[in-house]
Amino acid sequence: MFLVEGNKIISELPNSNFKIKEIFSTNPQNLNFRDTIVHQIAENELKKISFLQNPKDSVAVCELNQELKLGDQSIQLVLDGIQDPGNLGTIIRLADWFGIEQIICSDDTVDFYNPKVIQASMGSFTRVNLIYCNLVEYLSATQNTNIGTDMDGENIYSFQKPEKLNLILGNEGKGMREETEKLLHKKISIPRFGKSQSTESLNVSMAAGIILGQLFSK
Amino acid sequence: MFLVEGNKIISELPNSNFKIKEIFSTNPQNLNFRDTIVHQIAENELKKISFLQNPKDSVAVCELNQELKLGDQSIQLVLDGIQDPGNLGTIIRLADWFGIEQIICSDDTVDFYNPKVIQASMGSFTRVNLIYCNLVEYLSATQNTNIGTDMDGENIYSFQKPEKLNLILGNEGKGMREETEKLLHKKISIPRFGKSQSTESLNVSMAAGIILGQLFSK
Repeated sequence: MFLVEGNKIISELPNSNFKIKEIFSTNPQNLNFRDTIVHQIAENELKKISFLQNPKDSVAVCELNQELKLGDQSIQLVLDGIQDPGNLGTIIRLADWFGIEQIICSDDTVDFYNPKVIQASMGSFTRVNLIYCNLVEYLSATQNTNIGTDMDGENIYSFQKPEKLNLILGNEGKGMREETEKLLHKKISIPRFGKSQSTESLNVSMAAGIILGQLFSK
Repeated sequence: MFLVEGNKIISELPNSNFKIKEIFSTNPQNLNFRDTIVHQIAENELKKISFLQNPKDSVAVCELNQELKLGDQSIQLVLDGIQDPGNLGTIIRLADWFGIEQIICSDDTVDFYNPKVIQASMGSFTRVNLIYCNLVEYLSATQNTNIGTDMDGENIYSFQKPEKLNLILGNEGKGMREETEKLLHKKISIPRFGKSQSTESLNVSMAAGIILGQLFSK
C-alpha cells in the first residue's frame, strides 16, 4: 500500500490504474467517490497519519500497481541513480507535461512510491509509467538512441533529434555510472551563458526540463 | 548579517562583493582565507548554529550588502511574489547559468537573505543582483519589453525575442497580480504535449528554465 495526500491529487486517482483502498478525510463532503470507503477523521488524527509537514484535507490508502513495461516509446527518460525524491517527483511532472509515457530507472533510483515522490509529482504519477531494472541490460538491448549530457557534448541548440531516443539523467552528485556512459550513442550539452568560472552545474531536473524544451521545439 | 554554509559556497565569497565577518568551522585547515577570523568549533556546536538539517563543515557570518540597482539589463527576470525559498534559490542559479545579472523582485517576494534561498542558489547568489521594489512603478517605467506567461500566450517556439526584455514570473499559487498583468507588453506560453486533461501547470522555476532555454536558442 502507499499514501496519496490532498483532495486535489486524490481526485485524479479514479482516472488512473491505481486502486484506492480507503480514504481518511477531515472533509469527506468534498470528495465524491462511489464504491470507496471514506472515513471522517479529526485534524489531529490526520496530523498523525500524514507524511506532510502541513497536512492537507485527506489521505488515500492505495494499492501498489504491478510493474508492467510498455514497449520502448519514441521519447523516454532513463534515470541512473536519482536519489532525491523531490527531483524524481519533478521529473515525473515534467514527463507528464511533455507527454512522455515511460521512465526507465536503475534499481537504485529512489522508490516511486516514496511519499515525497508522489506528492512532488502532483498527480502526474498517475500518468507516467516507471520501470525499475538493470540499466546496463536495458541500454544494451534498446533500439532507441541513448543520449546523455556531457560538458563536451553536442550543443542542444544545433543537435539533430533522433527518431527514437532515451534521455539519460545521472545521479545528483556523481552523475552517470561509468558503465552507463559506455552505452551512450550521443552526448549533448546545454551551453552556459554566464561568465562565472564556477563549476556549478544545473540541477538534474532543471537540465532535463531545458533539454526536453529543446527536443520538443523541433 | 546573514549565514553562508559549507566550504564550497563559502570559498566563492572572496570573488564577490560580500564581506565575511567571521567563520565557524569544524575543518579550518580546509579554508584558506587571509584577513578572516576562522574559529574552530566542534560538530555539536556547528549543529546548534546551522540552519541545515545535515550541517556541512563551516558557517560564515557575512555582512548584508547595500541594495544597488544596475541599469536595466537586456534580459532580466522580474518576480511577482515568489514565496518558496527553494524556488527563489533555483531561479537565482538559473539566472547565473544564463548570465542574467539582475532580478527585480516585488516587495513581498521571499527575502534574498533567507538561509534556504542562499543555500538553494549554491553560490550563484554572489553573481546575481537582486532588487526589491514596487513592481507597478518599475514595470511602468522600464524601457524593456515586459513579457509574462499566459495559457493563451504566443508559443515560445515561434515567439520573436525582443531586444531588451523582462521575463515576469508570478506567485506559485496565484500567479501574477492583476496590476502586474496589465503592464505586460507580450504574453507567451509553453505548449503542453501531454494528453492529460489535468490543469496542473509546471513549477514556476521549471517554466522559467524552459523559457530561458528557448530565449537563448535564438
